[in-house]
Amino acid sequence: MNSFGRIFRVSIFGESHGESVGIVVDGCPAGLPLNVEDFLPDLERRKGGIQKGTTPRQEDDLPIFKSGLLNNKTTGAPIAIFFENKNARSDDYEKLKDVPRPGHADFVAHKKFGGFEDYRGSGHFSGRLTVALVAAGVIAKKLLEGIEINSSILEIGGEKDLEKGLQKAIDEKDSVGGIVECRAKNLPIGLGEPFFDSLESLVAQIVFSIPAVRGIEFGTGFAAAKMFGSDHNDAIENKDGKTKTNNAGGVVGGLSNGNELVFRVAIKPTSSTSKEQLTLNWTTDNIEKISIKGRHDLCIALRVPVILEAVTAIVLADLMILEQQISRINKA
Amino acid sequence: MNSFGRIFRVSIFGESHGESVGIVVDGCPAGLPLNVEDFLPDLERRKGGIQKGTTPRQEDDLPIFKSGLLNNKTTGAPIAIFFENKNARSDDYEKLKDVPRPGHADFVAHKKFGGFEDYRGSGHFSGRLTVALVAAGVIAKKLLEGIEINSSILEIGGEKDLEKGLQKAIDEKDSVGGIVECRAKNLPIGLGEPFFDSLESLVAQIVFSIPAVRGIEFGTGFAAAKMFGSDHNDAIENKDGKTKTNNAGGVVGGLSNGNELVFRVAIKPTSSTSKEQLTLNWTTDNIEKISIKGRHDLCIALRVPVILEAVTAIVLADLMILEQQISRINKA
Amino acid sequence: MNSFGRIFRVSIFGESHGESVGIVVDGCPAGLPLNVEDFLPDLERRKGGIQKGTTPRQEDDLPIFKSGLLNNKTTGAPIAIFFENKNARSDDYEKLKDVPRPGHADFVAHKKFGGFEDYRGSGHFSGRLTVALVAAGVIAKKLLEGIEINSSILEIGGEKDLEKGLQKAIDEKDSVGGIVECRAKNLPIGLGEPFFDSLESLVAQIVFSIPAVRGIEFGTGFAAAKMFGSDHNDAIENKDGKTKTNNAGGVVGGLSNGNELVFRVAIKPTSSTSKEQLTLNWTTDNIEKISIKGRHDLCIALRVPVILEAVTAIVLADLMILEQQISRINKA
Amino acid sequence: MNSFGRIFRVSIFGESHGESVGIVVDGCPAGLPLNVEDFLPDLERRKGGIQKGTTPRQEDDLPIFKSGLLNNKTTGAPIAIFFENKNARSDDYEKLKDVPRPGHADFVAHKKFGGFEDYRGSGHFSGRLTVALVAAGVIAKKLLEGIEINSSILEIGGEKDLEKGLQKAIDEKDSVGGIVECRAKNLPIGLGEPFFDSLESLVAQIVFSIPAVRGIEFGTGFAAAKMFGSDHNDAIENKDGKTKTNNAGGVVGGLSNGNELVFRVAIKPTSSTSKEQLTLNWTTDNIEKISIKGRHDLCIALRVPVILEAVTAIVLADLMILEQQISRINKA
Repeated sequence: MNSFGRIFRVSIFGESHGESVGIVVDGCPAGLPLNVEDFLPDLERRKGGIQKGTTPRQEDDLPIFKSGLLNNKTTGAPIAIFFENKNARSDDYEKLKDVPRPGHADFVAHKKFGGFEDYRGSGHFSGRLTVALVAAGVIAKKLLEGIEINSSILEIGGEKDLEKGLQKAIDEKDSVGGIVECRAKNLPIGLGEPFFDSLESLVAQIVFSIPAVRGIEFGTGFAAAKMFGSDHNDAIENKDGKTKTNNAGGVVGGLSNGNELVFRVAIKPTSSTSKEQLTLNWTTDNIEKISIKGRHDLCIALRVPVILEAVTAIVLADLMILEQQISRINKA
Repeated sequence: MNSFGRIFRVSIFGESHGESVGIVVDGCPAGLPLNVEDFLPDLERRKGGIQKGTTPRQEDDLPIFKSGLLNNKTTGAPIAIFFENKNARSDDYEKLKDVPRPGHADFVAHKKFGGFEDYRGSGHFSGRLTVALVAAGVIAKKLLEGIEINSSILEIGGEKDLEKGLQKAIDEKDSVGGIVECRAKNLPIGLGEPFFDSLESLVAQIVFSIPAVRGIEFGTGFAAAKMFGSDHNDAIENKDGKTKTNNAGGVVGGLSNGNELVFRVAIKPTSSTSKEQLTLNWTTDNIEKISIKGRHDLCIALRVPVILEAVTAIVLADLMILEQQISRINKA
Repeated sequence: MNSFGRIFRVSIFGESHGESVGIVVDGCPAGLPLNVEDFLPDLERRKGGIQKGTTPRQEDDLPIFKSGLLNNKTTGAPIAIFFENKNARSDDYEKLKDVPRPGHADFVAHKKFGGFEDYRGSGHFSGRLTVALVAAGVIAKKLLEGIEINSSILEIGGEKDLEKGLQKAIDEKDSVGGIVECRAKNLPIGLGEPFFDSLESLVAQIVFSIPAVRGIEFGTGFAAAKMFGSDHNDAIENKDGKTKTNNAGGVVGGLSNGNELVFRVAIKPTSSTSKEQLTLNWTTDNIEKISIKGRHDLCIALRVPVILEAVTAIVLADLMILEQQISRINKA
Repeated sequence: MNSFGRIFRVSIFGESHGESVGIVVDGCPAGLPLNVEDFLPDLERRKGGIQKGTTPRQEDDLPIFKSGLLNNKTTGAPIAIFFENKNARSDDYEKLKDVPRPGHADFVAHKKFGGFEDYRGSGHFSGRLTVALVAAGVIAKKLLEGIEINSSILEIGGEKDLEKGLQKAIDEKDSVGGIVECRAKNLPIGLGEPFFDSLESLVAQIVFSIPAVRGIEFGTGFAAAKMFGSDHNDAIENKDGKTKTNNAGGVVGGLSNGNELVFRVAIKPTSSTSKEQLTLNWTTDNIEKISIKGRHDLCIALRVPVILEAVTAIVLADLMILEQQISRINKA
């Protein structure tokens, strides 16, 4: 299903080279002020074509509201938001039709959808759709009064000096990956549920819907596996649950514990690389050399921080309405 | 919600020191043969009290079928399975009532449920409930004909020599964590969906419902973030989608690609440790020293492999029924 | 799926002649007092064997709590409740195995589940499972402080004099149906949603899961189709939404409007009748005469009122938690 | 939630006088041919402004596909469909802002959404949104090869002679209701599930999301309550489950039984009537006379048949994919 959330529920649609991408946000409290301007900063952060290392494809990325707003306030009805695809160059992909690009969804989509998939620029599987996630995230963030969510890149191409990491990709005419961290402050205690809908479960579920994510860890994460219990446990210091350390990354027993939520994700190197690679030609059944000439990012991780914030905000908004920490009517 | 799955749907319940734990499995195809004996090997693998390093608490762990079976075959109706708690020692926990154990859910559960939570041995948050997941996993595995799921421990206490890792815990009178890997062979191509219900999303969601999991990575995972794209991409070699390498761990674009599914999880050290720790006493508002004397595992990771297999099987069974790769009526 | 509800969520299981029937109630607020005694009055109302016209099969119908309670209060974890089947007489049904009883689920269940269904006394399709709905309803009712739900029989066998209607069945050695009404007072305004989850949609969905229900109407219902708009519209009289008439039955635009919720359901005559009927013998492929000798109700409608109240309470509890009209922690 | 369906899942959005209404259809099999022309006949049937007795508001009602199609075939990705609102006259409603129209959602929406609702022409609660249901129904119908769904009006204003019924409304300057029947032939046996997702449950749930529906009955429906069991039971005549009579309306035990699915719905008279009525003025707190001058239908039931077919098709498509009777890839 292309939907997520129990109460604050998003449904995503669209393709990279179709007419548009968009999202329907259902269950948003009524009375929340929303203007196009609210969306621009985060949409700008996500855009390619500006930062070194991101795709030269440029889209206006102006949200078009189709429903759910009246006088710039949410009405309580579903909010449909669109983004037009203006700068698509489908021709770049026509010639790749018989040659599934390594690392991309071309092959699996072809098998799953029987050859009827939109093969142009990854179609529905494209990172282009994250523009819609960012838009939903803007709405979610506005609901999360007092909560600060911040995401940053820790590492590019194995380097903490990000410029240096990017330069490696440029030098090698190849692509690189990265590590991105997300932190959320001032969460109430008790968001999430013991099983299946634990805070980690929901964050991980939505994070893995971001193309190119290969791993996620909370708090000390994988490093926890090498620690002693007495070192890893965070000592509770006061009645608000403040802990001395935060090895847990703000989640214990699947629930937020009132400390900062901290998680990191691993982003693989962009699958499109101009370096020559081998792949199968479906029609000829030959192994062929391929070099991806389309416009693409050297390092997709550069665009991930704002997307991580967005999906985190979506999870938190849903859980906070569920826990009655956000009112169904926004009177502010 | 304590439920997971769209078609093959499990609903878990129970507490560590309550009368029982159990699970309802809805949407299981009719006609699947099921006997108590089918469950014993996996339940045995999960048990404590046998392996060095696991809790001396011993339970029979015999599944009691309450519905959904006739003549040892599934009927298509929901299957309710129970496990009795016979060997619970609640008194161990009575004295801890005012002192939330560091690393445990005691504090967050208290806040979320207003003091009405079952505080005995982590109550509903306990690892004891994984016995129910293992039982559902046995059913799921039986549906997954031809698919092999195997899980193994890669590292304990930072050591690849597992005995050595455990000995560290014994020497230090502390607890240790570990890394566990899970692999599934012979998956069809196309399980999962592009967003939200990607194969990684669903596996991660259910894996993070296992207590003590702190991270998950697919294929090369976090290491992918340091690779070049041309190295990370797996070259497709034939029409079945076989790739030369398997850096993707069998998932591309959120869908299974026909290669082996591979993921690893980080397990934190057992929160209960006999080493002295500091925590808050709710009643006195003082910081107190605490040392957990109850029966517990030195290393919970030792018990995780069979649980990982179980939850992976649950995800795969659900997706394979959805993709019509498993019939709603099992005629075998 | 055998589950219902978004937040207050019930999952039903069991069979008529299996070991037990039961229900798991997930999402119930913590801190609600619950005792076996709370359940007895409604369970008693549902029972056969007491009233003239109901089945002589008698069960103790004592709820057995398996999880989710501590010191007679809900803990916030799922509540599993069981009822044992002690008075089942499966032999009555063995001989009917090859002869699908007219009006019963025997034939469709056989086709849907490939012959693996529990055929004894309708198996999972049996009215026996309504005991579990009644139990969940008791919990829901306790949450609905200040709301009164009352259900009553309007008509039996086409007669408003119920004795007379029953006597017709006795005289004819046949079974009869009836009309049952349900009313709920003091609902807040705004329960339900415009589409798909309208209050009527949800009530109708759960009501049609009660065996033998053939129709439902709200307010003036089918009679509304013969009225003029100016007669049918209810004039709003004050700021609380009180209307002069209540033709709408308390629901407008899919939402509760603050007036009494009123709906009626049509219950078909019990399918089991001792009168001779024709049906197919699967094995011989002949049309045979059949006369149902098992213990059964002359009129199933007699047992429906308390079940209607229960399912109505389940819907209202779910919607009221969603609308934040019931707290997730019950401090009363 | 404004979504319906487990696999073939629709999400509706839009307002009567907003920019547009639309629907996202997720889970539609890939490879289904879809053209604008496929939609026109059903959209035309639903339209007002043509038939005597329907609103003079006219919209082009041309579906605009925003995603999910390539070369006029479904791709397996979500299909977003829009309809523009061109012929909205919001001014008609501005003056009614303080005066909730009797029978309409104005009052309850105002309370539920805190005054932020789109009050123009019922906003999101409007019958205008049924255009989106009809569009989703067209897709569903195309999936249901071999199944015939037909809906017809049985009665208008209490008259079987429909002209006569309408004339009553014209003569009285009032509105009238009606009874509409829907029939579906050639269903496979076994669609639906015993509880909560019974075929009646799902049909009733979606039918009650159509504005103005006040009741639903299957087969003999309410009349069944007056019958004897031996008369009501349908005798099974052959191995395909064909029954001699069809009092059950094609559903037994919550499952389709292979006979014709038959149900009827009661449609209330249009709430908008030019006859003077009383209602509350929120601002002055006075009871005022109101007469609805906007464009509206004399009898909304006239437009319901095609909508009933659409929602029935949506339910059937979902269940048939679930039961693996419709392939996830449409190769036809």
